[in-house]
This record gives sequence, C-alpha cells and structure tokens, in this order.
Amino acid sequence: MNNTLSNTSVTVIGLGLMGASLALALRGQVKSLCGVDNNPATRAAAAPLLDRVTDSLSNALSDADLVIVATPARIILSLLPLIGQYARPNTLIMDLGSTKSQIVGVMRTLPEGIYALGAHPMCGKETSGFAAADPLLYRGCTFALCETGRALPEHRTLAETLIETVGGVPFWIDAEQHDQYVAVISHLPYLLSMGLVAQVANDPARDTLFKLASTGFRDTSRLAGSDLSMMSDVMATNTDAIWRALAGLQSQLTALLAAFSNDAPADHAWLSAIRERRREWGEHFAERRSSSDSRKD
Amino acid sequence: MNNTLSNTSVTVIGLGLMGASLALALRGQVKSLCGVDNNPATRAAAAPLLDRVTDSLSNALSDADLVIVATPARIILSLLPLIGQYARPNTLIMDLGSTKSQIVGVMRTLPEGIYALGAHPMCGKETSGFAAADPLLYRGCTFALCETGRALPEHRTLAETLIETVGGVPFWIDAEQHDQYVAVISHLPYLLSMGLVAQVANDPARDTLFKLASTGFRDTSRLAGSDLSMMSDVMATNTDAIWRALAGLQSQLTALLAAFSNDAPADHAWLSAIRERRREWGEHFAERRSSSDSRKD
Repeated sequence: MNNTLSNTSVTVIGLGLMGASLALALRGQVKSLCGVDNNPATRAAAAPLLDRVTDSLSNALSDADLVIVATPARIILSLLPLIGQYARPNTLIMDLGSTKSQIVGVMRTLPEGIYALGAHPMCGKETSGFAAADPLLYRGCTFALCETGRALPEHRTLAETLIETVGGVPFWIDAEQHDQYVAVISHLPYLLSMGLVAQVANDPARDTLFKLASTGFRDTSRLAGSDLSMMSDVMATNTDAIWRALAGLQSQLTALLAAFSNDAPADHAWLSAIRERRREWGEHFAERRSSSDSRKD
Repeated sequence: MNNTLSNTSVTVIGLGLMGASLALALRGQVKSLCGVDNNPATRAAAAPLLDRVTDSLSNALSDADLVIVATPARIILSLLPLIGQYARPNTLIMDLGSTKSQIVGVMRTLPEGIYALGAHPMCGKETSGFAAADPLLYRGCTFALCETGRALPEHRTLAETLIETVGGVPFWIDAEQHDQYVAVISHLPYLLSMGLVAQVANDPARDTLFKLASTGFRDTSRLAGSDLSMMSDVMATNTDAIWRALAGLQSQLTALLAAFSNDAPADHAWLSAIRERRREWGEHFAERRSSSDSRKD
C-alpha cells in the first residue's frame, strides 16, 4: 500500500490549516510534494518544508499524480474545471471541502481520464492559516470519502492509504447524506456559536455580559472563531440542510423547555438519558483520539 | 481583612463540586470548617479534610458565624427558612446558587438579626460531586454578589474577603439583572447544548452522526454533561429570562442566515466583527485565568 503512495507525486492546492497540515503530515511519505498558494508570505513560509511551492496552477499540475484541493468550498467549485484542464491524464483529484454534494457534482463533469474522489476530514481547530498547521491534526480523525463515479478501485485504495498515512480513519459515505449529517453536527453548532456571540455583542450590557461569561460560554461559542471564508462557503453550499437542522433543533428546544418545566419522572428520565448519551460519547471520543495518539508516539 | 476570616467559623451546606471546592480552598484560612451533606459516602470522603462533617443542620449551625449554602437552587430556597430558624443571631448566610432573584427574595424574609448575601461564582465544570472538587476551582473566577438589604458593611467586607481568599474576584450586581445576564451567557448555552445532543440522539442515523461528530460538536455540546439537578433548578427558577434569551437568539440566527446568504460587504463586515469579538474575548478570558494562576503558584 505505502509503495503506491511513495511513488506518487502530490500537489496540495491551498496551504491554509487543512492543506498545510496534510502536506506536513505527508513529508517523506510521497515521491514529491508541491504546494500551491496565492499568498506570497504563505509560500515563503512553506518553501523550506516542501519540495516545491508555486502560485501557478499549470506548473503545479504538470507532474502531479494526485491533486488535493484544500481551499474553501466555493473556491474548490471554481478551481475544479481549471484543474481538470491542466491535469495530466490519470491524475486523481481529491478535495478537503466541508460540504460534498455540489463538489461531487462538479467532479462528475471532469474530462475523461481524470479521476476524482470527494473527501472531508472531520477535524479542525478554530485557528486558521499556514502558521496554525499541525502534522498531527489528522490523527484519529474520521475522514469522510465520497464516491463520484469517476474513480477506479486503485484510486479508492490510494485515497485510503493517504488518509491512514496521516493517521486518519477513512469513512465512505454518500455525498448528500454527508451534507445532511454535517449540517447537524458541525454547521448548526457553528451557527449557534455565532448566534450566541452576536447576541452578547448586540446587548447594551455587553461589557458586563462578557465579563461574567465563563467556561460554559467559552466552549459553546468557540466555533465562532472559525475561519470565516471557510464557513461562509459552508453556509452557502449547504443552506437547505442547515435550515432543516435548525428547524429540528427548535423542536428539541421546545421539548426540552417543556420537560424542564413539567419536571415529571418521564421528563427527568429523558433529560438524564440525553446527559448520559453526551457523557458516553465524550468518553468514546476522547479514547478514539488518545488511542490514535499512542499508535504513533 | 484576613483577621476577620480567620476568626470566622464557616459551615458549608452541600459538599458537591461547588461547596466542596470552596471548603477545600478555605482550609487553614478560617477558625473552623464544618461540612453538611445528606450522602454518607460524601461525608466519609470529606471527614478527613474538614474539622467537622455532619448531616444535622441544627448541629452544623450551632456555632457557625458564616453559613454557605451550596446546593441546587430549589433546595437553597427550601433550606433558607430552616437555616434562619437554627442559626445563631448575627450569623451571615450566603449561597452559591446559579440564579439569584428568587433566592434573594427569600433571604429578605429571614428573621431579624440574621444577615444574608446572595452569591454566584461564575465558574464550574461539567463533572460534579465531591470527587470532582478542586480547591483551585475559584482562581480567577468572577464571583457575583447580590445585595439583599439584609447585610451590614462588615458582612459585605467579609464576603469579599472570603471570595478573594479562594482566588475569586467579587462583582456586585443586582439580582434581577444577574438572572437576565446569566440566562444569555450560561443558561441558554446549556439549553442549546442539550438541544444538539437531543437532536442527534433522536435521529435514526444517530450512530453515524456520533461517529462523525468531532471537536466542534464536543465543545458546543459539552454543557449537556452538566449536573442535571443543578441545571433543572436553574431552568425552573429562571424560566422567563431563559425564554427571552432564546427569543433574542432566534433573531440573531435569522439575521446570521440572511447575512451568510446575501454575502454583501456589509454582511461580511458584520460576520467578521462577531468573529473578532469572540477572539478578543477568548484572549482576555485566557489571560484573566492564567494571571490568576500565576498569582498563587
């Protein structure tokens, strides 16, 4: 398996948190590693760490076997046709976009002989940019992979090997389903987090509110610090699913407020079950992350 | 100042996370330290650490100068009249309840010669019980203090000294205002956190959703692991303010979704300002906590 990857020339387009972390994790594991970024300061910072750094897409694609597009989703959508034009025959294109339906849709229109798979690593941090890059970011990370009808078994194997090499866990899923799921577990939490900060910032008593706010507010609002270009593209490319997720949440909130105010045994049992479910999940999640850490340390 | 505290016999009622952490932080700083708890296992665990541990309220109050009620809010409401009955003249009663209006209202009805101040430390963790107690819990913690009309200047000074001794920062605030503020920065985040977990747990695809959920979901849903007896009492004693906070949030969410879908420069500026506000607050909060750590280490 690793033979395949070690014979592969990889180009990463976009050296922000996700792309640069992937590139750093792939150092020494691939035949050659090229990075593409528009920002001269990012290129200067990345140059000593990669085999080649450029702002020219055509140049970066001239000898690539595997292209990983790690920009915000709407930029992925606009780059894919260009990449399809410049890429050599038999190139495999993957992306790391946070939403998958629209991207997989465009991947299906790539020229014959160009292969593609959608991908989305379910990890991140609220800091962004090359300076925040971390080669350990993908350890223990569930890495969604989406079929496009434009990949051969060998491409699926290469994608899985790449993910496992950086410490991730491949997880095949339909693109539409992926988008519905991440609306609930990722995009809605982001929206709520922004909503909480907006509400405090909009309050005439904002200074006192921010002064009193503590660890509960810190954690619940953490995602509001996420990279805005990435999240704007998420919101724009998954709008319907996010609205549905918000409507679902509103039903839950109404049921919760009723349960808290009735305070009958059945209500208490339901509330306890929710709490218990969160605690179980938290333990499993911490274990998953730490077992993946120890695998490599 | 510390002379006053070192001459004070303190009784802490309720040796859960908040009460036990306060008692542990007060060891060696007061004349004597008595703990009250209904749970025999808690009393057994606390006995070696305090001067006296009992399940008898009358016994615990017989020589107390300062009583700190550290149970969930509705139990505070039911205990206050009993404490007023058993306490010696000139005793100061404080509480650590998460809501203040109803509690301060009952404090105003205590017998003549019994003094009272409402308090609420703006810190905590999602673990609960004596085993989770931490004498450093209050370091850097903003500690809300509410007037009751039933305290003398010397009581206010004693309360401030107590808070500063455990590393907290006293913050005087009107009880009604406190409840409105914490509805926004604490109770609403808890409700949203429970709502997110309920929504996932209620979904037929819950196993996949929990599998894909990552650090964003972890942080946004962390408060759902909070102690349910404490939070049920919070929801029951601050219902109106929580409803108002939820209505306020809903306006913000609608405005946010509109801003994301319009994506005009003014929308982008507003979204950026929210993100920036969260980042500034996060930095100040981390500094506040770490400067208070280094003060004592």
